[in-house]
Amino acid sequence: MAVDTARITQALNPRNVAVIGDKGPAYQWLNSMKTFQGKVFSVQLDPKEIPGIEAMGVPNFSSMVDIPDDVDYAVIAVPRRVAPIVLKDCIAKGVAGVGMFTSGFAESGSEEGTALQETITQMARDSGLVLLGPNCMGLYNPKLGVRFGADQPTGDDGGVTVISQSGGHAGGLASTAYANGVELRVVVSFGNGVVLENEDWLEYFAQDDGTKIIAMYIEGIRDGRSFFRRLREVTKIKPVLVWKGGQTEAGKRATSSHTGSIGESMDTWDAVIRQAGAIRADNLEDASDTLKALASLPPFTGLNAGLTGGTGGQSVSMTDAFSKAGLGVPLLTQDSLDRLGEIMQVVGASYYNPIDIGGINREHFGTILDIWAHDSNVDSLMMQFSPQVFRRSPEAAEEQIGEYIGLKATVGKPMVAVLHSTNPYADSEAVHTMDGWLRAAGIPTFPTYERAARSLRKVADYHRFHAGIE
Amino acid sequence: MAVDTARITQALNPRNVAVIGDKGPAYQWLNSMKTFQGKVFSVQLDPKEIPGIEAMGVPNFSSMVDIPDDVDYAVIAVPRRVAPIVLKDCIAKGVAGVGMFTSGFAESGSEEGTALQETITQMARDSGLVLLGPNCMGLYNPKLGVRFGADQPTGDDGGVTVISQSGGHAGGLASTAYANGVELRVVVSFGNGVVLENEDWLEYFAQDDGTKIIAMYIEGIRDGRSFFRRLREVTKIKPVLVWKGGQTEAGKRATSSHTGSIGESMDTWDAVIRQAGAIRADNLEDASDTLKALASLPPFTGLNAGLTGGTGGQSVSMTDAFSKAGLGVPLLTQDSLDRLGEIMQVVGASYYNPIDIGGINREHFGTILDIWAHDSNVDSLMMQFSPQVFRRSPEAAEEQIGEYIGLKATVGKPMVAVLHSTNPYADSEAVHTMDGWLRAAGIPTFPTYERAARSLRKVADYHRFHAGIE
Repeated sequence: MAVDTARITQALNPRNVAVIGDKGPAYQWLNSMKTFQGKVFSVQLDPKEIPGIEAMGVPNFSSMVDIPDDVDYAVIAVPRRVAPIVLKDCIAKGVAGVGMFTSGFAESGSEEGTALQETITQMARDSGLVLLGPNCMGLYNPKLGVRFGADQPTGDDGGVTVISQSGGHAGGLASTAYANGVELRVVVSFGNGVVLENEDWLEYFAQDDGTKIIAMYIEGIRDGRSFFRRLREVTKIKPVLVWKGGQTEAGKRATSSHTGSIGESMDTWDAVIRQAGAIRADNLEDASDTLKALASLPPFTGLNAGLTGGTGGQSVSMTDAFSKAGLGVPLLTQDSLDRLGEIMQVVGASYYNPIDIGGINREHFGTILDIWAHDSNVDSLMMQFSPQVFRRSPEAAEEQIGEYIGLKATVGKPMVAVLHSTNPYADSEAVHTMDGWLRAAGIPTFPTYERAARSLRKVADYHRFHAGIE
Repeated sequence: MAVDTARITQALNPRNVAVIGDKGPAYQWLNSMKTFQGKVFSVQLDPKEIPGIEAMGVPNFSSMVDIPDDVDYAVIAVPRRVAPIVLKDCIAKGVAGVGMFTSGFAESGSEEGTALQETITQMARDSGLVLLGPNCMGLYNPKLGVRFGADQPTGDDGGVTVISQSGGHAGGLASTAYANGVELRVVVSFGNGVVLENEDWLEYFAQDDGTKIIAMYIEGIRDGRSFFRRLREVTKIKPVLVWKGGQTEAGKRATSSHTGSIGESMDTWDAVIRQAGAIRADNLEDASDTLKALASLPPFTGLNAGLTGGTGGQSVSMTDAFSKAGLGVPLLTQDSLDRLGEIMQVVGASYYNPIDIGGINREHFGTILDIWAHDSNVDSLMMQFSPQVFRRSPEAAEEQIGEYIGLKATVGKPMVAVLHSTNPYADSEAVHTMDGWLRAAGIPTFPTYERAARSLRKVADYHRFHAGIE
């Protein structure tokens, strides 16, 4: 790695922060830093911008070197031609890390941009500076309140770290994670990654004890073989999710104009991810679903799922979805079928797995769930809850969900839930409330059978690989 | 077809309706029929149930034959052993059609169920009765207010007809369609389909002028070759969407206990759908997305898409999604690139398609959209709008969306929009409002790039097949 580990730790956990070149009317950087627990300084020469900055209560200086305190992390948001000048000041000031928002470097395809990128790269390398970027959103450390977006939550201390070449996807993954109850340790958006790139960040967070799960959005890497070896080592210690952007020829052209990356073929990437024991994600939903499952499910390796909670057609659909994801939907044991047969003759519904649980009354409901959940043919459980039930009676929905949650005490199997809505706008409150009950019990929810099944399978595959199965 | 077409029309467009065997406390059938424009009668012998029925203002009779008016459509919701008895009364009364909710027939796998199914089948065949079911939800005619669910909307007169072996999926597709602004002509849930099954309903709605698009959820069919020939004829007249339930071995087992269907392999089905020029859907979302696209997009056959509205990483992701769906994301023409180059030097973002439109001000925004939308390399348009923009300023979001909608006046290409949210609960109102603006302009919206791309591709494929392309 080009930079000392301690210096990275200092940059990612700053005591003081400086923002260079923020502008009104939005002052997006200084507004994002409002939640920062340490001191925030501004560097801005433009007399039109200074009153707005001072009105926010942020002390402004005309140069980095004038700031009376040490600065651990600085955001650079100046035009690209000015970037080398302020970078020099940062180095002179002894700043540990810089997040360079400025873009228009090699990714622009222009000679000037490429030359400027070489200049700042060399400056950072020579001084041992932790340079995030250029062309990035930099650091989001929720615990310390260092942010790159004014909507981002703070104060949590989660175990998921996001490493992303895209600022948009870094922010998107962070926002989706919180919306799904997954708390973050740190998010690093590093754009062109001229000094520290994917492998370096992977190496750093592998040894970071607070990071329990790593999620990466990758557009391109420096050295494929070296990255593969590193990835294979890290996945032994903690799960690594890899979302590769530029999976198609047209997509690769887009990465080239985004972060200047030239990608390998997706076949190669797929093999790298699989053989390294990492977890592949293909888009934001997929990444977020898998993170949620990884963060909340116990380790497991069995592929047979028990399904319930739908009517007849839904039972067919959930079976198709789970089968397509490579999970088994086996018959329950003969003992279970015998016991269910007695009840179901009264109720009149299908019970071979999935169990059609349509109009079943409470007395039978509990017994049926109990037989189903403890069946030895079944390694994981998925139950569907309908927002329609909630709309008719929140109490009935809470009771149903309570029965499912109650199984956790005696069943060690991974449990997930599906909250599918045919009208997401009308059902928004219902889904949110039901998800809250399940989330509080450590049961992740998904909006479709397909997403639940894919997430379960990915988590199982991670544990199977590292247990030497298949 | 086993039944006279005029009789089917009479059954699906009843003047009077009877419900046999509805029960409290919910009285789900009579409550569903509250919106019916004609007269509703109840047949119920149980003295415990009658006061509740009469309290709803519904006249109750002890037998069908006692009803003083003609009855065109009757719902049978009695225990299976009683079903032949009341069916006999319906036939004696001269009822045109029956929706038999009662289940426990051949799909139960029991001897008694199978024998009872044979009995009712023979009775219906001999009398020319339009029997929907058994084991189904029957008829939903929104225009007349005949419903099988108390939440279902009425009063519209749309062009989409749903034919479904699953009552749950019939209801789900209907609900999703309305939530997406797609209005329905009629929904037929026919379960075991002992008299009229998929091919019969397809034949009937092919000649129904009010039906512009047909969506089918199929678990099994009577005669594969005959169905294929019929399907191939009908798709020449109107688009037919086929969602096959039981796509996997485990899924097929589930269809067998649901509607007693034994399915062909999915490879066979895929070939049938493709070679007949129909449109395949794999789940509820997929079916609903494709219906929305079919109902709102003009016919088109070109596969190259123009994409915009995202930041750098999002541009990569939308390109990947569209490429994976088999759509091209070509460079714009040199003329467009030259014109965009002049503007973009000022703005500093990528513009090769996708156009990264992140921080572009209004003046440039309109010009850029105009060049992009009229580019001759591009056959269809997809623009993303962020709920985040709406949350900051609904006016700014409305203005952006207005610019996109404004293109419709001069661009004849199919236009879609993506409204992706990283926090669907928090963004529910924003997405709903933005969707409303776009929907009113005839532009369908999708929550992800993948779903937008798949839907576009499916509609293009339908028109390509029937235009003899590929």
